[in-house]
Amino acid sequence: MRPSGRNLSQMRPISIETGVMRHAEGSCLIRCGDTHVLCSASIEDNPPRFLKGTGLGWVTAEYGMLPRATNTRNRREAAQGKQSGRTQEIQRLIGRSLRAGVDRVALGERQITIDCDVIQADGGTRCASITGGWVALRLAVNKLLASGALTTDPIVDHVAAVSCGIYAGQPIVDLDYPEDSEAGTDGNFVLTGSNRLIEVQMSAEGATFSRDEMSKLLDLAEGGIAELVAAQKAALA
Amino acid sequence: MRPSGRNLSQMRPISIETGVMRHAEGSCLIRCGDTHVLCSASIEDNPPRFLKGTGLGWVTAEYGMLPRATNTRNRREAAQGKQSGRTQEIQRLIGRSLRAGVDRVALGERQITIDCDVIQADGGTRCASITGGWVALRLAVNKLLASGALTTDPIVDHVAAVSCGIYAGQPIVDLDYPEDSEAGTDGNFVLTGSNRLIEVQMSAEGATFSRDEMSKLLDLAEGGIAELVAAQKAALA
Amino acid sequence: MRPSGRNLSQMRPISIETGVMRHAEGSCLIRCGDTHVLCSASIEDNPPRFLKGTGLGWVTAEYGMLPRATNTRNRREAAQGKQSGRTQEIQRLIGRSLRAGVDRVALGERQITIDCDVIQADGGTRCASITGGWVALRLAVNKLLASGALTTDPIVDHVAAVSCGIYAGQPIVDLDYPEDSEAGTDGNFVLTGSNRLIEVQMSAEGATFSRDEMSKLLDLAEGGIAELVAAQKAALA
Amino acid sequence: MRPSGRNLSQMRPISIETGVMRHAEGSCLIRCGDTHVLCSASIEDNPPRFLKGTGLGWVTAEYGMLPRATNTRNRREAAQGKQSGRTQEIQRLIGRSLRAGVDRVALGERQITIDCDVIQADGGTRCASITGGWVALRLAVNKLLASGALTTDPIVDHVAAVSCGIYAGQPIVDLDYPEDSEAGTDGNFVLTGSNRLIEVQMSAEGATFSRDEMSKLLDLAEGGIAELVAAQKAALA
Amino acid sequence: MRPSGRNLSQMRPISIETGVMRHAEGSCLIRCGDTHVLCSASIEDNPPRFLKGTGLGWVTAEYGMLPRATNTRNRREAAQGKQSGRTQEIQRLIGRSLRAGVDRVALGERQITIDCDVIQADGGTRCASITGGWVALRLAVNKLLASGALTTDPIVDHVAAVSCGIYAGQPIVDLDYPEDSEAGTDGNFVLTGSNRLIEVQMSAEGATFSRDEMSKLLDLAEGGIAELVAAQKAALA
Amino acid sequence: MRPSGRNLSQMRPISIETGVMRHAEGSCLIRCGDTHVLCSASIEDNPPRFLKGTGLGWVTAEYGMLPRATNTRNRREAAQGKQSGRTQEIQRLIGRSLRAGVDRVALGERQITIDCDVIQADGGTRCASITGGWVALRLAVNKLLASGALTTDPIVDHVAAVSCGIYAGQPIVDLDYPEDSEAGTDGNFVLTGSNRLIEVQMSAEGATFSRDEMSKLLDLAEGGIAELVAAQKAALA
Repeated sequence: MRPSGRNLSQMRPISIETGVMRHAEGSCLIRCGDTHVLCSASIEDNPPRFLKGTGLGWVTAEYGMLPRATNTRNRREAAQGKQSGRTQEIQRLIGRSLRAGVDRVALGERQITIDCDVIQADGGTRCASITGGWVALRLAVNKLLASGALTTDPIVDHVAAVSCGIYAGQPIVDLDYPEDSEAGTDGNFVLTGSNRLIEVQMSAEGATFSRDEMSKLLDLAEGGIAELVAAQKAALA
Repeated sequence: MRPSGRNLSQMRPISIETGVMRHAEGSCLIRCGDTHVLCSASIEDNPPRFLKGTGLGWVTAEYGMLPRATNTRNRREAAQGKQSGRTQEIQRLIGRSLRAGVDRVALGERQITIDCDVIQADGGTRCASITGGWVALRLAVNKLLASGALTTDPIVDHVAAVSCGIYAGQPIVDLDYPEDSEAGTDGNFVLTGSNRLIEVQMSAEGATFSRDEMSKLLDLAEGGIAELVAAQKAALA
Repeated sequence: MRPSGRNLSQMRPISIETGVMRHAEGSCLIRCGDTHVLCSASIEDNPPRFLKGTGLGWVTAEYGMLPRATNTRNRREAAQGKQSGRTQEIQRLIGRSLRAGVDRVALGERQITIDCDVIQADGGTRCASITGGWVALRLAVNKLLASGALTTDPIVDHVAAVSCGIYAGQPIVDLDYPEDSEAGTDGNFVLTGSNRLIEVQMSAEGATFSRDEMSKLLDLAEGGIAELVAAQKAALA
Repeated sequence: MRPSGRNLSQMRPISIETGVMRHAEGSCLIRCGDTHVLCSASIEDNPPRFLKGTGLGWVTAEYGMLPRATNTRNRREAAQGKQSGRTQEIQRLIGRSLRAGVDRVALGERQITIDCDVIQADGGTRCASITGGWVALRLAVNKLLASGALTTDPIVDHVAAVSCGIYAGQPIVDLDYPEDSEAGTDGNFVLTGSNRLIEVQMSAEGATFSRDEMSKLLDLAEGGIAELVAAQKAALA
Repeated sequence: MRPSGRNLSQMRPISIETGVMRHAEGSCLIRCGDTHVLCSASIEDNPPRFLKGTGLGWVTAEYGMLPRATNTRNRREAAQGKQSGRTQEIQRLIGRSLRAGVDRVALGERQITIDCDVIQADGGTRCASITGGWVALRLAVNKLLASGALTTDPIVDHVAAVSCGIYAGQPIVDLDYPEDSEAGTDGNFVLTGSNRLIEVQMSAEGATFSRDEMSKLLDLAEGGIAELVAAQKAALA
Repeated sequence: MRPSGRNLSQMRPISIETGVMRHAEGSCLIRCGDTHVLCSASIEDNPPRFLKGTGLGWVTAEYGMLPRATNTRNRREAAQGKQSGRTQEIQRLIGRSLRAGVDRVALGERQITIDCDVIQADGGTRCASITGGWVALRLAVNKLLASGALTTDPIVDHVAAVSCGIYAGQPIVDLDYPEDSEAGTDGNFVLTGSNRLIEVQMSAEGATFSRDEMSKLLDLAEGGIAELVAAQKAALA
């Protein structure tokens, strides 16, 4: 029933290649089917101004998409002179999600910026950014631990994200672009490696939904996240 | 236990005063406790460009906050030269939520813009904007029906929104600012008058949450929405 | 002869309601006929940078208009990414006018920002902003005096403003929108409570004018200002 | 008593050199003492959009200042990414003033843009821009009359401007920078060649003023304008 | 003598991988040592407005760099709200260079946009963008020829670019970042496949240079371009 | 053969008038035929932030063009809200060229800003800006030497610039606008007073060029620069 031929709970093939940007403290290229995102982590010794003197660290994120990542060319945001509302919403979500998996006291007064740049898009770019962004963050923190700059690991748990939606009346997981553009309801679930919820964003684009459907989507999300966390572990092994 | 002394499922007093802006096709001032939002609806006979020739209408929203709506003065966004990411996220949410309650074929090729301007803020401004924005929309559509410009009512159901969160380990509804700034988890629920879900946005700012907690928050939301829909009906009566 | 039926020297009904914004150090809602402006005063302990170390204080103003304050919706300046020339001109006028009524040595190194937001417009919004802005300023300074932060009152006199113009060949006072858009000459007078001039801005939009006409407009202004100052006093009593 | 040694009603030397920019339809370099402004007039066959089909023409103005026109270098507005409030206020004044001397029906559906660029500043740049801008406008209209594009002269009268103020308690005319920065009250008068008022902008920067002082300033302005109009005539002869 | 151990006329290893972005009409990933650039070509059926009705086509380019392509993170241009002068200079150069190798009459009224996004930077990113951009352009034009949209090949010749400079007193080719940041003179040569010059940009950052040195740099450039053109041919074979 | 009737190696008449802006530390008006540029030098005692504590000085440049310097009016960059890519490219070239003639250690921790504003344009504005900008710089440095602020002259040599191109198949020097807009190849040479190269920027706008042509253009440039340096010397004598 799905355009891709996948069954309702079937994820796309996931691949995470680490160490792809030689200058970054951590980096990976995550591929969820035809959605490809380059993620890098950059460590700065100074936290943002509002945290000076608090002893707390910060994790933030920026998101971009190459103009021809999509089927028709999008205008470059740098040329337009501003980031769209969509871009800002996505990068706020990525930053918030990753911070939820970090002990900011243990991180200390430093900032780690996660850049997520979509090289190729086929739905689910924000979820891939979170899942890949966590791997880049993990690698950067490993470097701080290895160098002795940190002695306690500030990373509390894995963080991964997956999209779910109701397509042709059926709950499905990991929507690709054709599914995403047709789904009546869709959204994203961000979970920890131990199945705790970080973010739930479910939205009726075309048709409202029931609590029962919401519950089924959560079941699907839990299954998808398990696969993503396994892929994170494999990539870091 | 709540700073305000309310019990866990208790909403703040709601008041909706209609017809407060003489030029607008529909308007109201909604007060949810100390959160006050002016909502107006403006009808344009032309739809946005991407809908020309489709027969479909559009409902969109803009959101703003007076600089001194809050405890300390915020910089005016017009003076800063751009809307913050938070503002854009909120106005996208309001527009999306209200569109979910409208039959865009029945609306026809016109656009209704809902302006939500926060006069005074004490938490929950986006929810008040959705609940009050729906009343302004309803009044503007009534005008189109009264004039004969529309013969079928494009409004399918009430739309209202309420915040919920976990405060001091307890699920509560309709957070005010002191609660909002301390809650480990919080978010917003947008529902129809018949209890269907439009948007669920739950976010772990400080502590992750479980499916069970999610479910309790939904219970609280349903109770709050019922009160808000009753207030909408009373205001329009 | 006037569209409103008023006689040449007749002001619109004036109402000033104080304390309308709970967070602001001073606030009021001023209504001059159908022109309604929310005014708030915000105190900052630091003066702007160019006054550091001079012992002088500063009063400044910002002005905005809700998109649907007018008959047809205006684009939101925050969304356009800049304040119009008109807005900047108005807020410079408000700030300059209010400073003329303040002893900046007595105020000391602090800044008071007056925000004037037009909720509904029917001509004369900048004059209402000055008259109402002065009330907000007065209330904020009262707070500083009450708390002992100030021991000498830095406010020298009342400041109020009224528009005048030549409409259908006749000098009139306090133009509403239909009059304003037809007047050949119009402008604004800002005066103190003791009838001293602060600002005179008279402009020939359609027809040049004579010194004699200028003098008659000043007579009308003096009458109008007397009513406005009385309303300020009543509101503060 | 004046820093320059001039008496109270004495203007600075005025020189207007025409034809200084070979590409412009009209141009001049106006020198009022050490204030030097390059003025050009550019004719466009299309009026601005809001006048399409009305049969009316438009005169507008833009104003700029070279970064080192002043004693210390100012940041270039093009580099800052926006025109200051002061710049916008000035160019709106220039355009409004020049339009007041033009019959827009006779001008027909075309636009004339007056660019006023301050090469060197010593007070009174906006007045010099109006006086010089009118000469550039006159020359451009002469070209339209000479070519037969216009058969009726749309220029109704001369337009010129002069600053006045109260300096050390005395009313003076044509303030230079040292006077301007010390004056308690100052402003600008725009008059026609036949002594009709176009704009009166008087502002209390440091000390409020009386109607009697206002009247004396107007007397001074009339004397100054007479000299400026004579200089315009000489330059065009 | 070179930090990299290369001899004076030795290029870095070149690799060009085509077809790396599934949505683009043409794409490649070019690697010149540690400088990696993703290049895509997007065809639009409409030319830019200034070419409407002329029968001529257009080739243009945009350039970007991922924030962490470099040793320390650069601010994202989209977040800063504008493209730097350096970015604009580079994308103008890429567009101009590629147009020099195209018969714009044969291309017809369409536009091809080349996006060059630097994934990793180690000197010479603008040259790699031109060399890789040409491959993406060639592939997109091949598609137009294959589909019959074009019947005459508008591409006249190969276009490739290489940097040269004087490092430690010696002329060298294909500077990497350590060489680039130390070179007294450096610049870029853009040549056709038949050794004709398209662009010469040589600049004394630290030390002026002689005509004789200029000539030696050109010799080196010709050698480097031959290798680059060979790599282009191999990638397309 | 040239539209102007000049022979291939003939420069336009050059005039350099110094001391034209009374506030600037150095200034001149340079005229190369009908291209007129006002150049000023402004000294600041603080270097830009990236040089604090290095002991090095900085020379930078800004470039602008009056809207009606050209045949048809250009939009004012300050009104558009940004400097064009062309403007940025030009001002980067001017700054880089002038720095190449300065010993930044001898200059010490100060910044000199060269403003180049084109009053009238007929081709070659960036070259005239460099040649005239150097005179303004020389005058400002003379002032520092005269006041004893500097004891060693940081200016190493003259810097001047000229355009060359291939027009109707012939190499020519100092292109005016009609030549510039028709030339197949054109560019700019910046040289020192002792014939050393600072910048070579040659570009094939319409037709690629050979090394032999490049060499002939350099011959022409050397002749032109000699005339420009002589004019600099005469202006300063």
